[in-house]
Amino acid sequence: MQRICVDMDEVMADTLAEHLRRYNQHFDETVTPADLVGKGLWEVTPLERQQQLRAFLDAEDFFEDLALMPGAQDVLKSLSGRFEIFIASQAMVVPNSLGPKYRWLQRHFPFIPPTHYVFCGDKSILRADYLIDDQPRNLHLFKGTGLLYTAPHNLTTTGWIRVDNWKQVDDYFAGVPISD
Amino acid sequence: MQRICVDMDEVMADTLAEHLRRYNQHFDETVTPADLVGKGLWEVTPLERQQQLRAFLDAEDFFEDLALMPGAQDVLKSLSGRFEIFIASQAMVVPNSLGPKYRWLQRHFPFIPPTHYVFCGDKSILRADYLIDDQPRNLHLFKGTGLLYTAPHNLTTTGWIRVDNWKQVDDYFAGVPISD
Repeated sequence: MQRICVDMDEVMADTLAEHLRRYNQHFDETVTPADLVGKGLWEVTPLERQQQLRAFLDAEDFFEDLALMPGAQDVLKSLSGRFEIFIASQAMVVPNSLGPKYRWLQRHFPFIPPTHYVFCGDKSILRADYLIDDQPRNLHLFKGTGLLYTAPHNLTTTGWIRVDNWKQVDDYFAGVPISD
Repeated sequence: MQRICVDMDEVMADTLAEHLRRYNQHFDETVTPADLVGKGLWEVTPLERQQQLRAFLDAEDFFEDLALMPGAQDVLKSLSGRFEIFIASQAMVVPNSLGPKYRWLQRHFPFIPPTHYVFCGDKSILRADYLIDDQPRNLHLFKGTGLLYTAPHNLTTTGWIRVDNWKQVDDYFAGVPISD
């Protein structure tokens, strides 16, 4: 059975929405995803706010209750009949996220067993056929076929198979022949 | 550079010693590693104590302060000049261990960056040349060369390259030619 690794932040979970919500509330701003075309939030943030920007992520509760990306549950449930699904999150950059991410996956994706969670850093360690990720640098490191999941920060990136939403993920894998 | 994945429990950390310490203290017993030749602790434990045996591992502080296996630091530091070292722990079976394991690695192995920690379940996900592990089932799943690190429970296991201690790990890799 072919194996798909799926990134969490910005692919399964709407991490940016929560980051923007906390940023806007804290600094009384109105930044939206449309302001972040081709850029990360840290690139449009004044220098003196960078430390706070990072502190939002380090908060114990940041990753506990992120919104789901629409369709992620249904499409992954459907794909899990034809492919072996692993969750691969770069969780080591925010160690406080480890427990919350584990609980979030159990709550929203009970059909994927914890044996198939991978909390890592460098995604070149993954032995899989596909990786769905919003970060081009992760796709570069990965040795299989990379699919770039569209996020505001990567809208100007070229050179990857791109999926804009979970419907397109479903369509892509519908065209992949079953193999051992 | 060739890549070595290293298991934590019973390879880098003396997890069994801590488990035995808590077990013996709690039940007023005197079980030693010598009583566990070819068997896991759960196999010599009466049924009515199994739940408590697991509860020791689930305690928030169990993995915080495990003793180091002798030589693990020096040999891994030396090998990290010639090989790419990843830490690969089956941490998902004890989710409370995620934070403590991260902190333990940072404290004792500061020369291995968190990008090279992998907390996983099924070790078939690892893309590496070597895996050093005390669990034959992990070596079975792994696609590269497996080295069985001796622990009481695997003393009767055959069919693997065996290393009894970190000196033998060092000797083994001294004989491995450098490649890209």
